[in-house]
Amino acid sequence: MEGGEVTAVDGVRPDDGTRGAAPTPLRVALLGCGVVGSQVARLLREQHDDLAARVGAPLDLVGIAVRDVDVPREGVDPALLTTDAEGLVARADIVVEVIGGLEPARSLLLRAIGCGASVVTANKALLAEDGPTLYAAADAAGVDVYFEAAVAGAIPIVRPVRESLAGDRVRRIVGIVNGTTNYVLDQMATERLDLDAAVAQAQALGYAEADPTADVEGYDAAAKAAILASLAFHMRVPLEDVHREGITAITAEDVTWAASTGHVVKLLAIAERTDDGVSVRVHPALVPTTHPLSGVRGAFNAVFVEAESAGELMFYGRGAGGAPTASAVLGDVVSAARNRVLGGRGPVESSYADLPVLPASAALTRYQVRIDVVDRPGVLAQVAAALADHGVSIEAVRQSLAAGPGDAEVAHLVMTTHSATDAALAATVEAVAGLDAVLAVRSVLRVEGN
Amino acid sequence: MEGGEVTAVDGVRPDDGTRGAAPTPLRVALLGCGVVGSQVARLLREQHDDLAARVGAPLDLVGIAVRDVDVPREGVDPALLTTDAEGLVARADIVVEVIGGLEPARSLLLRAIGCGASVVTANKALLAEDGPTLYAAADAAGVDVYFEAAVAGAIPIVRPVRESLAGDRVRRIVGIVNGTTNYVLDQMATERLDLDAAVAQAQALGYAEADPTADVEGYDAAAKAAILASLAFHMRVPLEDVHREGITAITAEDVTWAASTGHVVKLLAIAERTDDGVSVRVHPALVPTTHPLSGVRGAFNAVFVEAESAGELMFYGRGAGGAPTASAVLGDVVSAARNRVLGGRGPVESSYADLPVLPASAALTRYQVRIDVVDRPGVLAQVAAALADHGVSIEAVRQSLAAGPGDAEVAHLVMTTHSATDAALAATVEAVAGLDAVLAVRSVLRVEGN
Repeated sequence: MEGGEVTAVDGVRPDDGTRGAAPTPLRVALLGCGVVGSQVARLLREQHDDLAARVGAPLDLVGIAVRDVDVPREGVDPALLTTDAEGLVARADIVVEVIGGLEPARSLLLRAIGCGASVVTANKALLAEDGPTLYAAADAAGVDVYFEAAVAGAIPIVRPVRESLAGDRVRRIVGIVNGTTNYVLDQMATERLDLDAAVAQAQALGYAEADPTADVEGYDAAAKAAILASLAFHMRVPLEDVHREGITAITAEDVTWAASTGHVVKLLAIAERTDDGVSVRVHPALVPTTHPLSGVRGAFNAVFVEAESAGELMFYGRGAGGAPTASAVLGDVVSAARNRVLGGRGPVESSYADLPVLPASAALTRYQVRIDVVDRPGVLAQVAAALADHGVSIEAVRQSLAAGPGDAEVAHLVMTTHSATDAALAATVEAVAGLDAVLAVRSVLRVEGN
Repeated sequence: MEGGEVTAVDGVRPDDGTRGAAPTPLRVALLGCGVVGSQVARLLREQHDDLAARVGAPLDLVGIAVRDVDVPREGVDPALLTTDAEGLVARADIVVEVIGGLEPARSLLLRAIGCGASVVTANKALLAEDGPTLYAAADAAGVDVYFEAAVAGAIPIVRPVRESLAGDRVRRIVGIVNGTTNYVLDQMATERLDLDAAVAQAQALGYAEADPTADVEGYDAAAKAAILASLAFHMRVPLEDVHREGITAITAEDVTWAASTGHVVKLLAIAERTDDGVSVRVHPALVPTTHPLSGVRGAFNAVFVEAESAGELMFYGRGAGGAPTASAVLGDVVSAARNRVLGGRGPVESSYADLPVLPASAALTRYQVRIDVVDRPGVLAQVAAALADHGVSIEAVRQSLAAGPGDAEVAHLVMTTHSATDAALAATVEAVAGLDAVLAVRSVLRVEGN
């Protein structure tokens, strides 16, 4: 918890009219405590007050179902651990499932829904295999099923497709939705490795499993493609209808030739609507280097969407990993919780944070400064000293000669600074401008994005 | 309407248990009928049945408030037009405001909220100036305010920040949120125009207004920065606290130097959280060509988000224009409508479309085929004829020589085809493989993303 942010008391938004009457906490149950689950538990604890303010009621983690309570888990209160998952889901308002696989995840989620809980899951295999059963059960029980984390980790793609684009017609979705294969193909291209060497490297770095089949054969991407197609086209897409080819046939030669013809090789999940129906498929493909998807590197994911009115959209970010996936799970927990607290209303504007807005002069930034100087020995040293006097250090400097007025030689200096406050940089530029050897400050521009 | 998609009758979802009891239509009022409004009206009409299926009740456009009902508006039913905006908002469940500016938009939205309607607005100026008044009124009335279209046109950014990232902590948002200035800077870089010439070109193409002040001086971006910062940091950010610098000081020389040091010049809207508070600012900056934002060209927008758990995210798409903005507005209308119909539940999985899933062989695609052929005259013609026989045309072909087995010369052909069905392409490759002159088919890869 960072201090001073939350002005709410006991999780009550200061302006929600319920001050005094403490709202009933929502009971959150967590199924699974692996890479993702432990991060979900951590965030629920560390951000307890922030989340309470955003929801309008505290979110209390009431238990974590695990197979073995005696395995030590860093940062997790052992008193929360239980092996009685069935008992746990019966006493929760929101059940978060991060076990993965079909069973016992499916039975536990159906039981949770049957007990009136809303559920949040990151389980792509289950949703692709048997999502409609879950949705129908939730529909009948009048509770929510959220699954933002199931398709592309931290990247919000489920919510945009099923809500933001709900008034549009999606024509085509093309996604890089498997970080492992993207990393492998990327290494083949940049390090000129063959497939086996690149997979071995991904395994050594923890990006690929000991058995990489689910990734390299495209099973993971196929499950995500089925989910995306279902959302985009408002229909059921059985997993067995997804055409699937992995990357195992891709050679180093393919990748080299791709580059020489202006392409990169990517494993794509494609869901496409034609006049005759929909096509859902996963296969490697050449993507032109001019296409936004071609720049998606390493373990990142991206999903490109073409809709009739919206045109082209792209969503980019981390598609896996404990903290990124937990971020998506928590967003879903907040949505489910808001639905319970606000009863049918959209999220209210939560203006609960009390932070000062700083003047621009306080912003940390970098400058690129271009100046004309007299071309004589020692001038660069003089300019550098003026910067150092103001505590500003130079990251790079570049000099070129130009014809000056009359016969004098004029040097053009392009200096890029390290980070400093805008105020310090502005003062520095003024000092530099005042030097005898400086003929003109041609340009001062901030540098962002490093 | 495309035929055959909707299996719902009278807008009732086939499996929602209300078959027989026709649901009460939701009355939608539209304020404004310009570039965006006319597209909203068109989509409400053309997608009436789809929207009804997605919401669970029909969305009926009950009126469009305009200043002059006698101006002809293509595709808009004149009977819907009215100058009585106040009367119109009083008889609507959902009011869509696309007039822009402070008044009468603010008064009409407050009146709509007072009458119990949910409101959807694309009005960045009003939200940046006086959003909290609207939010407080909606809060008191228990209705929704949605405004996805106000920040970056068709790009879903409001929903991801206020819902998907609701369980995370946003550290920084850096956006290219003004398409006009992005187009201008892009033209300066690629066509080596100076600022005035690039602005004139943007005006000629309709990307810039006759008076381009709001864009080139950064006012439009500043309003969007204020809204983004409010959402990201859960606080009120007054527009006057946003530091604003436009692009008028940017010279052709700046752009050229930027390129020579590996940067592009972009107008950025930045909302950043530091230990001391938040900084919200709009100014031009150099962005390294390695950063995802550097590739955002022309009239496109993009928003880059850094959150504590999610890491780096980017959202990309069309930031303006009638149809893209209308897409975002319609998504909001569906959300507001679902809240009214479903009473507090998240969007249900709407499996109402009845479309066939096609086999992969039916997918339209392109191939890049690499083959080894005997290097003798006429071989290329023979291969090309085999493709033509199957109705597949060649987009590009590239040939290189390699040492073959023994002393024979082997030519390596890389052919890229035009679009055809996967089945046709597969048959073609088989025919090519059977030619005498073809020694080996080295690789067959699909090409996507054109």
